[in-house]
Amino acid sequence: MDDICFPIQEHAMKYYQKPEEGLDIRGVTMAVEAAFAEHGRGNVQMPPKVYVTFPHGDFRTMPAYLPGLDIAGVKVVNVHPENPGIGLPTVMAVTVILDTGTGAPRAILNATALTDLRTGSAGAIAVKYLAPKKKVTVGLVGSGRQAIAQLNAISREVEVTGVRVWSRKEKSSNAFCAQFPDFECKVSSIEKACDSDVIVTTTPSTVPLVMNQWVSEGTHINAIGADAPGKEELDPAILERAAVFVDDPAQAVHSGEINVPFARGLFTREEIAGILGDVVLGKKKRTSPDQITVFDSTGLAIQDLAIASVAMKSGRYIELPFL
Amino acid sequence: MDDICFPIQEHAMKYYQKPEEGLDIRGVTMAVEAAFAEHGRGNVQMPPKVYVTFPHGDFRTMPAYLPGLDIAGVKVVNVHPENPGIGLPTVMAVTVILDTGTGAPRAILNATALTDLRTGSAGAIAVKYLAPKKKVTVGLVGSGRQAIAQLNAISREVEVTGVRVWSRKEKSSNAFCAQFPDFECKVSSIEKACDSDVIVTTTPSTVPLVMNQWVSEGTHINAIGADAPGKEELDPAILERAAVFVDDPAQAVHSGEINVPFARGLFTREEIAGILGDVVLGKKKRTSPDQITVFDSTGLAIQDLAIASVAMKSGRYIELPFL
Repeated sequence: MDDICFPIQEHAMKYYQKPEEGLDIRGVTMAVEAAFAEHGRGNVQMPPKVYVTFPHGDFRTMPAYLPGLDIAGVKVVNVHPENPGIGLPTVMAVTVILDTGTGAPRAILNATALTDLRTGSAGAIAVKYLAPKKKVTVGLVGSGRQAIAQLNAISREVEVTGVRVWSRKEKSSNAFCAQFPDFECKVSSIEKACDSDVIVTTTPSTVPLVMNQWVSEGTHINAIGADAPGKEELDPAILERAAVFVDDPAQAVHSGEINVPFARGLFTREEIAGILGDVVLGKKKRTSPDQITVFDSTGLAIQDLAIASVAMKSGRYIELPFL
Repeated sequence: MDDICFPIQEHAMKYYQKPEEGLDIRGVTMAVEAAFAEHGRGNVQMPPKVYVTFPHGDFRTMPAYLPGLDIAGVKVVNVHPENPGIGLPTVMAVTVILDTGTGAPRAILNATALTDLRTGSAGAIAVKYLAPKKKVTVGLVGSGRQAIAQLNAISREVEVTGVRVWSRKEKSSNAFCAQFPDFECKVSSIEKACDSDVIVTTTPSTVPLVMNQWVSEGTHINAIGADAPGKEELDPAILERAAVFVDDPAQAVHSGEINVPFARGLFTREEIAGILGDVVLGKKKRTSPDQITVFDSTGLAIQDLAIASVAMKSGRYIELPFL
């Protein structure tokens, strides 16, 4: 039977199903930070995401090439809000990796969980560089997969001394806290959650949830949830007070936290304080401990390539049998 | 051992390596024609190809959704002209298919040979609708993989009564004819090859090879080779005499046979006679038996989805284990 059994393939399939299992989160964040640094240096190729719409959702195609990390490829990711009703995730993703020398298809990775992790890493990088201190309390608005990934990654870059979580369903908040027994995790009101050094918003809201008067000076906010036109989580008055950093200006005005205020003329492209790539390089930073800083994350293809490079170093991929 | 053996996976891997083996070429052409018809009806989503450049080549990302064929996905394809020097194909491709209902990644196919076949089918469709008769002689300028795919597909749509082939290397032309023992295949001069009812050009030339004075009235030409800015195979004077049909106007002026004359102001977008989708629907056609017709093929993502749908009907794909 040996000749029709494929232990290597079985191994690959296992990792294809769960390439995220056992990944070192700090290692992922380091790779994602290296990708943002390359972005800040202008040393990446990353055309805008391409959208194709379905009756019940859409899919986005995200190609990129990172010469500095010697990796290139394409993530294909859907967004189907009705999927949970039939037991499927809203967002599913797959990444194809090409050989940078020959262009040959080299690998394919299940990128569904990797997408959460690389977004968590971007949030952690923003906190590391933009929060005014290295010991922080974290307030979470939203308690789903993205919230988990954010707290996991943030807590490896700074010391988290307390966590408050709010979500529409208290049951979800309780489940969230149960996953973080090492933190002082408390279910709270949204106002109380916002009384934290770092606020992380991860909801699919289309109306502002975080009110201006709840946000103290010196707070850093990761605005993660808004990823499509019409979505927003923050009172636009917060953006007026804050230094707003983005991953990519074009994507941010199109579909990030600033997209609604931008469309309404309440926020201009010139008001963007800088890109995370420049923050990582030290070219841009918070200008005082009292400043409010916001990181508006939309998700970049180079983050997907960075986490793919980490997963591939540990063999967590399917090798495409082309060569 | 049963639980660590994956006969289904082995089967899938075999087809992944060779999804083209045993595919019915007529069936492929029918599916590709259905895709062009949907294109003619305006019933497809197909954003422009996205290019990313490597030091030794590039890759193109081609997403699309064909509601009429209930298929959606992305082809990723490289072009590396130096690859043959290290024993690899210039062009390699992979297609990811998504479920149109849920957006879930569903399948992956090796699309290297499929790319040749779907291009052959487009050429065959052009000949079927645009050549002035159903029994034709075919002259081939270029004798590589694309030439083989063209003749294979064309000969299933019309009766081929003789073949003349020219290429830079006579050895290649001889090898080509050896593959088509059923036709009257003759190695010839390029001028003689052009004295045919149907001319098919499949070279990577950047200077015109087919001269205006060699082309008789009533000839149909498939211009297949030009697929990037700067490439051209036909004397621009031929385009002035001919009715020029394209697969996609934007792609054709960017990278098809008409791209060089277009860039030089010798050919305008208004001079395009129509798209193949309209030809298939009967909305556009040759206007007299003496007219010269040209089909300028650049390759559409919907062709890749059409052939993927045929390959998947016979199980020739890797199922992605998401659901």
